[in-house]
Amino acid sequence: MRWLRVAALCLVLGAFARAEDGYRLWLRYDLIGDEALRADYRAATQEVSAADSSATLRAARDELATGLAGLLGQPVTFSKTENPQATLLVGPARSLPAKIADGLKAELARLGDEGYLLKDVSQAGQKQFVITANSDIGVLYGVFSFLRQIQTQRSLVGLNVASAPAIKHRLLNHWDNLNRHVERGYAGSSIWEWFVLPDYVTPRYRDYARANASIGINGAVLTNVNADATVLTPEFLPKVAAIAGALRPYGIHVYLTARFSAPVEIGGLKTADPLDPAVGAWWKKQVDEIYRLIPDFGGFLVKANSEGQPGPQSYGRNHADGANMLADALAPHGGIVMWRAFVYDNNVPDDRAKQAYNEFKPLDGKFRDNVVIQIKNGPIDFMPREPFHPLFGAMPSTTLGLELQITQEYLGASTHLVYLGPLFKECLASDTFTQGPGSTVAKIIETPPAGRSNHSVIAGVSNIGTDRNWTGHPMAAANWYAFGRLAWNPALEPAAISEEWIRQTFSNTSKVIDTLQPILLSSREAAVNYSMPLGLHHIMAEGHHYGPGPWVSGIRADWTATYYHRADAQGIGFDRTKSGSNALAQYSEPVREKWENLATCPDEFLLWFHHLPWDYKMRSGRTLWDEICLHYQHGVDTVRSWQPSWQSLKNDVDQERFYHVSALLTRQEREAREWRDACIQYFETFSKRPIPEGVEKPEHPLSYYETLRRHYVPGTTNASK
Amino acid sequence: MRWLRVAALCLVLGAFARAEDGYRLWLRYDLIGDEALRADYRAATQEVSAADSSATLRAARDELATGLAGLLGQPVTFSKTENPQATLLVGPARSLPAKIADGLKAELARLGDEGYLLKDVSQAGQKQFVITANSDIGVLYGVFSFLRQIQTQRSLVGLNVASAPAIKHRLLNHWDNLNRHVERGYAGSSIWEWFVLPDYVTPRYRDYARANASIGINGAVLTNVNADATVLTPEFLPKVAAIAGALRPYGIHVYLTARFSAPVEIGGLKTADPLDPAVGAWWKKQVDEIYRLIPDFGGFLVKANSEGQPGPQSYGRNHADGANMLADALAPHGGIVMWRAFVYDNNVPDDRAKQAYNEFKPLDGKFRDNVVIQIKNGPIDFMPREPFHPLFGAMPSTTLGLELQITQEYLGASTHLVYLGPLFKECLASDTFTQGPGSTVAKIIETPPAGRSNHSVIAGVSNIGTDRNWTGHPMAAANWYAFGRLAWNPALEPAAISEEWIRQTFSNTSKVIDTLQPILLSSREAAVNYSMPLGLHHIMAEGHHYGPGPWVSGIRADWTATYYHRADAQGIGFDRTKSGSNALAQYSEPVREKWENLATCPDEFLLWFHHLPWDYKMRSGRTLWDEICLHYQHGVDTVRSWQPSWQSLKNDVDQERFYHVSALLTRQEREAREWRDACIQYFETFSKRPIPEGVEKPEHPLSYYETLRRHYVPGTTNASK
Repeated sequence: MRWLRVAALCLVLGAFARAEDGYRLWLRYDLIGDEALRADYRAATQEVSAADSSATLRAARDELATGLAGLLGQPVTFSKTENPQATLLVGPARSLPAKIADGLKAELARLGDEGYLLKDVSQAGQKQFVITANSDIGVLYGVFSFLRQIQTQRSLVGLNVASAPAIKHRLLNHWDNLNRHVERGYAGSSIWEWFVLPDYVTPRYRDYARANASIGINGAVLTNVNADATVLTPEFLPKVAAIAGALRPYGIHVYLTARFSAPVEIGGLKTADPLDPAVGAWWKKQVDEIYRLIPDFGGFLVKANSEGQPGPQSYGRNHADGANMLADALAPHGGIVMWRAFVYDNNVPDDRAKQAYNEFKPLDGKFRDNVVIQIKNGPIDFMPREPFHPLFGAMPSTTLGLELQITQEYLGASTHLVYLGPLFKECLASDTFTQGPGSTVAKIIETPPAGRSNHSVIAGVSNIGTDRNWTGHPMAAANWYAFGRLAWNPALEPAAISEEWIRQTFSNTSKVIDTLQPILLSSREAAVNYSMPLGLHHIMAEGHHYGPGPWVSGIRADWTATYYHRADAQGIGFDRTKSGSNALAQYSEPVREKWENLATCPDEFLLWFHHLPWDYKMRSGRTLWDEICLHYQHGVDTVRSWQPSWQSLKNDVDQERFYHVSALLTRQEREAREWRDACIQYFETFSKRPIPEGVEKPEHPLSYYETLRRHYVPGTTNASK
Repeated sequence: MRWLRVAALCLVLGAFARAEDGYRLWLRYDLIGDEALRADYRAATQEVSAADSSATLRAARDELATGLAGLLGQPVTFSKTENPQATLLVGPARSLPAKIADGLKAELARLGDEGYLLKDVSQAGQKQFVITANSDIGVLYGVFSFLRQIQTQRSLVGLNVASAPAIKHRLLNHWDNLNRHVERGYAGSSIWEWFVLPDYVTPRYRDYARANASIGINGAVLTNVNADATVLTPEFLPKVAAIAGALRPYGIHVYLTARFSAPVEIGGLKTADPLDPAVGAWWKKQVDEIYRLIPDFGGFLVKANSEGQPGPQSYGRNHADGANMLADALAPHGGIVMWRAFVYDNNVPDDRAKQAYNEFKPLDGKFRDNVVIQIKNGPIDFMPREPFHPLFGAMPSTTLGLELQITQEYLGASTHLVYLGPLFKECLASDTFTQGPGSTVAKIIETPPAGRSNHSVIAGVSNIGTDRNWTGHPMAAANWYAFGRLAWNPALEPAAISEEWIRQTFSNTSKVIDTLQPILLSSREAAVNYSMPLGLHHIMAEGHHYGPGPWVSGIRADWTATYYHRADAQGIGFDRTKSGSNALAQYSEPVREKWENLATCPDEFLLWFHHLPWDYKMRSGRTLWDEICLHYQHGVDTVRSWQPSWQSLKNDVDQERFYHVSALLTRQEREAREWRDACIQYFETFSKRPIPEGVEKPEHPLSYYETLRRHYVPGTTNASK
């Protein structure tokens, strides 16, 4: 009777605990249903001997306690004192029993500062496992990896995972303003609660740090690249320090964006000229003060001379002059400058895609050792698909970092389901051929030039906000996850990452995995198809970038859609071959030749590089016009096909997220149609050709879409980045 | 063994469930620790027969299921079909067994549309309880009241609670913009997720509705009084309808703010002149469309000709012309217009406090039956203390509503602990004497003039935002709670309300109650003392209103501090007697005389009504100067005294909120000192008298406070409301 009562109580409490709002992300640690499996894991973790001599090691131990208690349904037994016989030993190599540490020496030697080792060291029927590393933070990464093994229900028998990050600085870039508005943020406001800081430090920072550390992210730029010098004032620096304090145990370094004109705006100087000694001295003092408050401060991210931001060119200096001045201030403290290559001339260029290359390539070799040039994946601006940026590989004497966009500025904000793993991977795996075959973007950013310190950088523009589930769309967290996993190891496959994420976020059942994974994996291509297929780009609405706007014109040319698609009576596409802007000349052979040549240029980049007649015969045998139309339709069809799939999971996932995703899929399907109907009808005014069989009739005439206005789209400001 | 394992599991799950982030507000429904008490409640609720023929009744039943399961630790047994023998009968009178219904007839007759009855109808040892009402919504209110009895651990024996609201429309006013910025909001962004609406309806709306219904709030104005016509467009109305749909089962009607110039801005008309027939027709059509989508739409709230908002005066018409035009459009549907009396002339008045009275009193009797004039509690603007607004009782032929501010615009935002129950009650209980003694503000707003429909209104400007705990400061939810409870029954006492709230929100132990209640009850007076004692008002910082600014001048006079405190070499205070602005003439006798006469004017209004010499002898025997200084010190001392009290609860409340409140108290104490040091030193420049014994030395010189700037204070826009 008594036990029944207790069980009933459990059920009731359980029901409360189980309301799934997504807050826990992929660290749910829910009880493993399978008794046998649970027993295996219990046996392996029966007694845990965990080092706890630092905040990071205590964070690791706490995570293990929380994770295992949830997954296995019983409190973890930690050894009171170090016990070399415990079934699970957790700690840096220096804390392990000598015999075990000696045996792992060779493996550990390959793992560097942040790598970790998970190892089954069982002997003679005596089960024993080790989570170890050369450093405390490595141990924390190891604990998260160990918990991931269990969360994804992998066997621990023969466990042998050795892993080290390929890139040193793995950062989230928050485009967060001090008023908590997030530029291109679609999941609520900024999680940085500036007003109540430094007094109140919300526990959410710790959960943010946990989630990031669990996927190996080790840095966060807290503020928007459209920067505000106020964050560098005595009013705000203690607030920054308080955040840094909360993130520190999890190995996350804090960075800030440096407003180039800060010496004038808050420093009382008359100039911000980087060659003026007073300016350099001001920054040096400023940086010293930051490090006094935040000894492990990471450095600055700078957007200069771009979209109205001040920069060295305002004083007749170049990007190297500006970056080096900041670098000199940071160098004594070990900080770095990430200087963005995303620049805008004041004049409209003949081809926007060429600008960064033209400005930066001549500066190769001119940057200090602690400067990294941060380059977006493609030469325009986070389009659904872009070829890799031509700067990758083009500055052999400069450290180059990669900037990806996790937030879906051009991909349906956080109302559309678009898994970006394939997009990230496509860029990382792109072979630039700049140093011969195998010169992938990944290799270029992983490998700083010979003689330079390793300041390799990968950055993702965050999709995180105050929404309870962090990212708005329940599936958008997969993009945060995929970014982190690829930042740690660019060799991972998006499919494998998506499976990991599904198992931890939703369920380990094959039904859920087999249903949801195909949705995720088809989603990026679907978005390309229903919005900007075949190399079309930048044809979105003005300002908010949500929804179609192929008709946008009448503003600065390189902000319009017509500048990019160039549709006319003859055809469509941006001619970037020799007969056009010749942007292709920025790529190495044989990439240039492959894309220049219509016979070898892949369909997906066709209209990126070529202006082609409407009747151009495609590989499929169809005309270009028909192909465009059918791609739009195909995008709609794909989204539509997800709806019954998702509905089939009604009883396999929790109610709250089931409904949330259902509601957003309804919207995505409607808006995919909107893209299709708007774009096809608009292009039809040039092509004057019939819409092919298989494409649905538009719901409204073109004028409807042209005059449709959306108000108060989140994440919108004047700057478009 | 097995039961031990299960118990361990429970503990683990419990630990997860127990992380208290404040989201559940006062509806926590945690297990009652006391076995005996739990047994009593279990006996009373052993079998529940609950009517479920409407969404509202189902909401009531669900709440009972959730609440009792949590409180009693076991699932509720509901009768499969109606069972007149069940221990708890829940439903409207029409659903009760005839014998019981007949017995309650007389009592029910007094309870109106929304009242409820909780009754112990046990007979001959057969326990039976009834929750009933004349309407479904009454049943829901009854269920919440019943759960409150249990949550506050009152005995159910002889249960006999009959309660009906004193005021018909009990509203929250959200000053929420469509971009989700909340004007004077300090708890994150607007909870209305406009962008994903109407597709996605967050479960948070339901929890918002539950919390409100639990305290009897039955309406929500979704949008800012500084209005935006966009909400009236076809893009937004379906979004409004979706919110209305989520709130409807809980009896919450949705209202909008009507931008007076909407006919021009979104209607394509050339004018918004209320006497132009085309304008009236446009609003009629607009209102018809709203009701087509939202059949129970509540009506409009209007801020017109105030702080730059358009209004009828822009067309040479008066407030009645404007309000009546909207009222005529709403009348056929049963909607109302709440027209705010908070108006600003374009010219600086001789006394800002007189303006609303001067503009509105002459219009008495000119408003339609469904117009309510919504008046702030005091004549200035939600100061820490104001005398009641002179319009109360001054328009005997007009329905007058009361507007209170729950959000702490002038009371430390949501970083200071200030329980507003006493402030609300002080206003409600104020006797205006306009119809002889007993003409309290409460009575005036409860009792519409003879011959007019009952459209009594009480409104509270919401302090709700997306912060997980809804209101920012963990104690600020007490103000939401107190507003709702007083709106239902203005006769309740703030002390009793605070005890109820503490019991439900923190703990039923006497230690917690006896420690926390004195803090809450002393907090409003503490805030008055450390910021604006003895009738001082409007001496806060410019723009954000957070912190001291007695030196503020040089802008429009009635937005400055110096306009209000009038400190000079002779003395301090605003002379509103006959020798001054004679604002006192707006009050009825004997109120006017009492406040005009220094011998009878209470200390707390002294400088509100009088300009007095620094050496004026106070009742205490001290000089005015010394008294001012000591009031500031006393405010600081009070806040400081809370800190050890709160620390003593470390093991009696959950960790998360314990730390949160501790951190904010540290800040409040520091900022109380800042108010003291800034104001005393500033006034000292006029008084030229020594700071009396017992007042601490200021931390910084006056210039420090005068030049202190706070950036990005939440809730700030240009309009000050």
